Amino acid sequence: MARVVTVDDAADPRLADFRDLARADRRPDRPGGRGLVLAEGTVVVRRLLASPYPPRALLGVARRLEDLAPDLAGADVPAYVTDAATMAEVVGFHLNRGVLASADRAPAPDLAALLAGARRVALLEGVNDHENLGALFRNAAALGVDAVLVGPECADPLYRRSVRVSMGHVLRVPFATSGLGAAVTALRDAGFTLAALTPGGDPGALAELAGLERVALMLGAEGPGLSGEALAAADVRVRIPMAGDVDSLNVATAAAVAFHATAGPAGSAS
Amino acid sequence: MARVVTVDDAADPRLADFRDLARADRRPDRPGGRGLVLAEGTVVVRRLLASPYPPRALLGVARRLEDLAPDLAGADVPAYVTDAATMAEVVGFHLNRGVLASADRAPAPDLAALLAGARRVALLEGVNDHENLGALFRNAAALGVDAVLVGPECADPLYRRSVRVSMGHVLRVPFATSGLGAAVTALRDAGFTLAALTPGGDPGALAELAGLERVALMLGAEGPGLSGEALAAADVRVRIPMAGDVDSLNVATAAAVAFHATAGPAGSAS
Repeated sequence: MARVVTVDDAADPRLADFRDLARADRRPDRPGGRGLVLAEGTVVVRRLLASPYPPRALLGVARRLEDLAPDLAGADVPAYVTDAATMAEVVGFHLNRGVLASADRAPAPDLAALLAGARRVALLEGVNDHENLGALFRNAAALGVDAVLVGPECADPLYRRSVRVSMGHVLRVPFATSGLGAAVTALRDAGFTLAALTPGGDPGALAELAGLERVALMLGAEGPGLSGEALAAADVRVRIPMAGDVDSLNVATAAAVAFHATAGPAGSAS
Repeated sequence: MARVVTVDDAADPRLADFRDLARADRRPDRPGGRGLVLAEGTVVVRRLLASPYPPRALLGVARRLEDLAPDLAGADVPAYVTDAATMAEVVGFHLNRGVLASADRAPAPDLAALLAGARRVALLEGVNDHENLGALFRNAAALGVDAVLVGPECADPLYRRSVRVSMGHVLRVPFATSGLGAAVTALRDAGFTLAALTPGGDPGALAELAGLERVALMLGAEGPGLSGEALAAADVRVRIPMAGDVDSLNVATAAAVAFHATAGPAGSAS
C-alpha cells in the first residue's frame, strides 16, 4: 500500500523526482544521462503502476490520489499529497492533470525474448520526434503490434512527452533499442518477413502481408524515410497509396494505416 | 504579378491582416465574426495561392518571398517584404516560417455540387479540436477523400492552426458546413452509403465498403463519438478492430485508417 505523506513545502527534498520537470527530463545524475520515467495524469499513472517500470513515488492533489487508491493498493511507494499551487511550484509550471508518478527505467528485454511470441513488430529508424514516437506507440498498442524495435537515432520512448502523447501505452508495448543490423538478424532468426514502408514500395503488397504469420514493418522518419541500408535489408517494399501531390502522412498515422492493413484476421482482436 | 513593397515600420497600417495574430484569428470586423484565412510558411502559402480563396496580401522575409516568386506570378496582391524582427513585432511572436499570406473566405459550395463527382466523403460531427481537424484534412487529402462535410459543432477548418496542421490541405479538399439532417439528405440523394465509425460497429464491414461506389464515412469526436441521431441515420456501423483495453485512436488517425481501408482500387491513386 502506498504511504500517503502530506507535504506543504515545495522545497521538500523528498519531491526531487518531480522538481523543475521541463529541465529535468534528462538528468545527468541518472545512468546513461537519462531521466526517470514520469507519468502525468490518472490514466497514464495507472498504466505506469501496471507496467514493468519500478515506481518510485507519486505527487498529486488529494482528489487525484484518491482516484488512484485501487491502483496504489499493491504499490510500496510514497504518495505525496499537496495542493495545486505547491505542486506547480515544485514542477515549475501548472500541471492541470493533478498527479505525477516517477519510476526507474527497467533493463531492456533481450531481442530474442521480445520477438519470441510476437506476430507483428514495428522497426523504427530515425523517428526522432517525441510526439510522433509517442503517437506511434499509442497506435501500436491499439492495433495489435506486439513489440517495437527502436533504432539508436530515434527519440527516447520514455521521455516525458512521449509517454504523455502515447497515453502511457509506451509503458505497455514491449520495446528494445537496437542497431539496424542486430534488429534485422534477430527478426530473421525469429522468422519475420521484413516489410519496408517507403514511397517507392508496391501499393498492392501491403494487404498481402496480412496473410503472413510474422511481419516486421520498417518505418522511417517523415522527411528522410528509411536509409538505403534498411531498404536493402527488407524482404518487400510496400507503400500506402497516396493521392496526387500530397506530402507523405505523418509517420504515426502512416504506421496506423499499415498496422491495420497488415493485422490480418488473427490480429483483429475484438 | 505580386507587387513587392518593402516595409520597415511594424506599425504600417497596410500590415493589418497580419497584426497580433494570436488574438486576431477571430475578428469581429469580418462577416460572421470569423477571421481571414491565414497561411504560414512557403508550402502552405503556395497551397493558399493555388486555392479558391482570394488572396489579399503576403508578408515575409526576402528569401521566403523569392522562393514563392513562381507562385506569385499570377497573383495581383501586395507582397510586403521586411526583416524577421519587424515581422515578429507585427505578428506578436517569432514566426520561424518566415512568410504569411492572407486571403478572404470564399462562399461554401452547394452541397449537391460538392457531392456530384465525389466517391469518398467524410461527414464530421463534433470534431471540435483544431489540430485534430487539420490533421484529418491532411489525411483526407492524402488518402483520396473528395469532400468533407463539417457539422456545425465542429471547429472551424479555416482557423489558422487547422490550416497549419493540415499542411494547407484544408485549402484544397472541398468542404461545406452543414447540419446533420441536410447532410444526410444530400448524401442519400447523391447515392452514398452512410457508414458510421463507432466502437459498437462491425469490424468486418469496413473492408466491404471498399467495393462500393459512393461511401460517406461518419466520424465523431474522440470522446463522445457520434450522436444517437447520426448513428440512426447510418446505413451501416463499422469499427476498426482494436486491441484489448486501449483507448480509441485519435480521430484523425482513425479517419486515416478508415479512409485507407475503404478507398477501394479506384481510390488508390498512384
